[in-house]
Amino acid sequence: MDNKKLVETITARDVDFAQWYTDLCLKAELMDYSDAKGFIIYRPYGYAIWENIQKYLDNRFKETGHENVYMPMVITESLFQKEKDHVDGFAPETAFMTTSSGDEGERLIIRPTSEVLFCQHYAKIVSSYRDLPKKYNQWCSVVRWEKTTRPFLRGKEFLWQEGHTIHQTEAEARTETLDMLSVYNQLGKDLLAIPFVTGRKTEKEKFAGAVETYAIEALMHDGKALQSGTSHYFGSGFAEAFDIKYQDKDNLVKHVFQTSWGVSTRLIGAVIMVHGDDEGLVLPPYVAPTQIVIIPIQSQKPEVMAASNELYNSLKEAGYRVKLDDSNRTPGWKFAEYEMKGVPVRIEVGPRDLANGVVTITTRHNRAKSLVSKDDVIKTMPNILKTMHDDLYEKALKHVTANTFTALTYDAFKTQIEQGGYIKMSISGEEAELIIKADVQATARVILDEPLVTDICPVTGKKATQTILFARAY
Amino acid sequence: MDNKKLVETITARDVDFAQWYTDLCLKAELMDYSDAKGFIIYRPYGYAIWENIQKYLDNRFKETGHENVYMPMVITESLFQKEKDHVDGFAPETAFMTTSSGDEGERLIIRPTSEVLFCQHYAKIVSSYRDLPKKYNQWCSVVRWEKTTRPFLRGKEFLWQEGHTIHQTEAEARTETLDMLSVYNQLGKDLLAIPFVTGRKTEKEKFAGAVETYAIEALMHDGKALQSGTSHYFGSGFAEAFDIKYQDKDNLVKHVFQTSWGVSTRLIGAVIMVHGDDEGLVLPPYVAPTQIVIIPIQSQKPEVMAASNELYNSLKEAGYRVKLDDSNRTPGWKFAEYEMKGVPVRIEVGPRDLANGVVTITTRHNRAKSLVSKDDVIKTMPNILKTMHDDLYEKALKHVTANTFTALTYDAFKTQIEQGGYIKMSISGEEAELIIKADVQATARVILDEPLVTDICPVTGKKATQTILFARAY
Repeated sequence: MDNKKLVETITARDVDFAQWYTDLCLKAELMDYSDAKGFIIYRPYGYAIWENIQKYLDNRFKETGHENVYMPMVITESLFQKEKDHVDGFAPETAFMTTSSGDEGERLIIRPTSEVLFCQHYAKIVSSYRDLPKKYNQWCSVVRWEKTTRPFLRGKEFLWQEGHTIHQTEAEARTETLDMLSVYNQLGKDLLAIPFVTGRKTEKEKFAGAVETYAIEALMHDGKALQSGTSHYFGSGFAEAFDIKYQDKDNLVKHVFQTSWGVSTRLIGAVIMVHGDDEGLVLPPYVAPTQIVIIPIQSQKPEVMAASNELYNSLKEAGYRVKLDDSNRTPGWKFAEYEMKGVPVRIEVGPRDLANGVVTITTRHNRAKSLVSKDDVIKTMPNILKTMHDDLYEKALKHVTANTFTALTYDAFKTQIEQGGYIKMSISGEEAELIIKADVQATARVILDEPLVTDICPVTGKKATQTILFARAY
Repeated sequence: MDNKKLVETITARDVDFAQWYTDLCLKAELMDYSDAKGFIIYRPYGYAIWENIQKYLDNRFKETGHENVYMPMVITESLFQKEKDHVDGFAPETAFMTTSSGDEGERLIIRPTSEVLFCQHYAKIVSSYRDLPKKYNQWCSVVRWEKTTRPFLRGKEFLWQEGHTIHQTEAEARTETLDMLSVYNQLGKDLLAIPFVTGRKTEKEKFAGAVETYAIEALMHDGKALQSGTSHYFGSGFAEAFDIKYQDKDNLVKHVFQTSWGVSTRLIGAVIMVHGDDEGLVLPPYVAPTQIVIIPIQSQKPEVMAASNELYNSLKEAGYRVKLDDSNRTPGWKFAEYEMKGVPVRIEVGPRDLANGVVTITTRHNRAKSLVSKDDVIKTMPNILKTMHDDLYEKALKHVTANTFTALTYDAFKTQIEQGGYIKMSISGEEAELIIKADVQATARVILDEPLVTDICPVTGKKATQTILFARAY
């Protein structure tokens, strides 16, 4: 298969973005469909992106005093029903675990999220202020009976982490909620090269049972938004329903204040849709499973293989995720393959370059080629990756800036929403959100901490109360 | 609570080993029961042991060319039934996923193990010898509808890793099977301080669908064995059932040869039951979540807290998992607490010692105390941990040696089995295994690569064919 043919199998983004996305997920071997409808297989190349995200976050969680646990994958129905808003939010999506013998007793719900399991456990193990705070996290998969499947974005099972913490004071819990939002935001800056917009969700969009929900939102290439993570402040609602109490220093018995926060394999989808191009994936260097691929040109020549191996070993030694492809495919095939897979850096090791003591380095995101002295590769690599990461972040940020609009009238809003992007508008409240959703399927992404752009809500004609960032979303 | 009271809450091992074990799992806060019967909560201290095991193994797997993936937690019933032996082995234990709406279509089995998912995926993605080998692993939880629950040892859901590989040749697959067995054995030597016995399982005891099953077996303090991990060679049985074929270099289409291997959170149980004593857990230093605890004596004195903090920072800096307990509990309470939790090294920082420039270091496994110059703590720590690890390994090995017997007659076998331990006996085959199991509930742990100890099987009176290591097992 030659270069051209390989690339042609991926639909162009502007022709059909959804098809481009699905093509890429499959062709780049990130995932595959399972024969159980709505369940996907995370293939090595896709799973490795998740592992890099896990490693980053797990370190940050532990540095900030969190501990990992593992709760069962099932919840008894009576436990699940203890917090009413929560049940209402999740009931339509729940799946159950049963056996042929029917000896499972009470109906067992397969976790769609684990708030109630953590609540019950906390109620049991906490009795004194000395036991607080408890800051737990778990890495697991959850099941929600979604009707549609879109790789990494929506399906019946997904991988995620869910943090659940309890605190003595409201202030401490609120700080935790925002601290973890900030960790997620930093993940975008440090690893994913994605400029998230962060903010509080409207009452309508907040999590079932939360007092406040904050989110990180990302803008995809097609102008649609993707909610990429959430952090919730629960107040004492769950604590009261589940009786999580402690004796304080003043000897009074009080309820705890609670948070939860999570990100999922949706983030893989965000990386694909923010950075990818018509040739395939473009993976930011710090999250890429393979950061550098070495391709020997005329690999039958001993000096080419010797130099390739030497380079491979020294890059590996230096801690890079590097691959040497010495298979018997043509260089052209390999170029197209690793472009499609979005490997950040390609190093060609050819006899002509070698004669001059150099190799050719190509960066995936801008296809810039440069000749680098063979002995300088290690020295220049940190800068190559850093520049690439910064370029990608800047490009994504420009995309956000260029596609963020302000609507002073509802007509302008409706016209603009068809073009995609974020639209700021000041609205009266939930009534306006419902009208907008019904009219043009756009939703409030976050409440902006910005002054009103109009005093009157263009949708309802009532007094505007808050400025909202709207978008159509995945 | 004083020292004595705390320890008294744990049943002594010789009084009731099973109760000692359960007491310890709960009191050391390794786990808790969930309200869904048969499902447990892995608490931070227990889960951290698993994380250390995961880290060790994941590195070894990746170094040896394996890649992680994630398969769905469900298997369609038709897929599950493709390999007959496998179905027969697992059918009684399967659980299903259902929904209220019943729109899940075909019955979905919640994975008890994922062979068939890997097989189906491999059949889809492999077509040429160039695609081989595929060496995948996954970390996940599986569900088996066990009737009894014993923390970490038996329950309805457990955490594990399952490796699944396919190869061009039988020789390569057989090598993989033994290589991974060897990785598990090395885990015992390097991390868990457990001397495993490794070997092949008898036909009766092998895994459903395997040609050969190898296991690592450990001997618990009470003389019962614990199967702690398995590695299977499948031949081409699954490959034929699932049509995993490739075109070889010679253009012929052939079936692959396959392996699978796994260890689970059972290993936590092994660590507890091999090393623990009547005061509580004894955790080998390289797997312990907290390796060193620093306890300030008279913490109100500024020089004590200053020295404690300094020590904490330098140990943390040096890469140790260290905890400084400056809570307002008494030193006596803390001593008992961390003894019970099996923290390998305790450092007491007291004003009198400090005046002499020293601190008191106590190692958990032998309660040996030594005065170490404050400035030498970092320098001596590697040796303290190494010695402790080696001591624990040696002690466990001595226990195995002292409790391994050879039976020349079935009467001797039956008498000895009541005392526990491993018993070697040469038997005629499965007929003898069935009799032994019915008579004294002992099972063949592994086939020993040793000469026959008797020519005639003491159980059946027939010609002996192999020497087996028997034990009662968890």
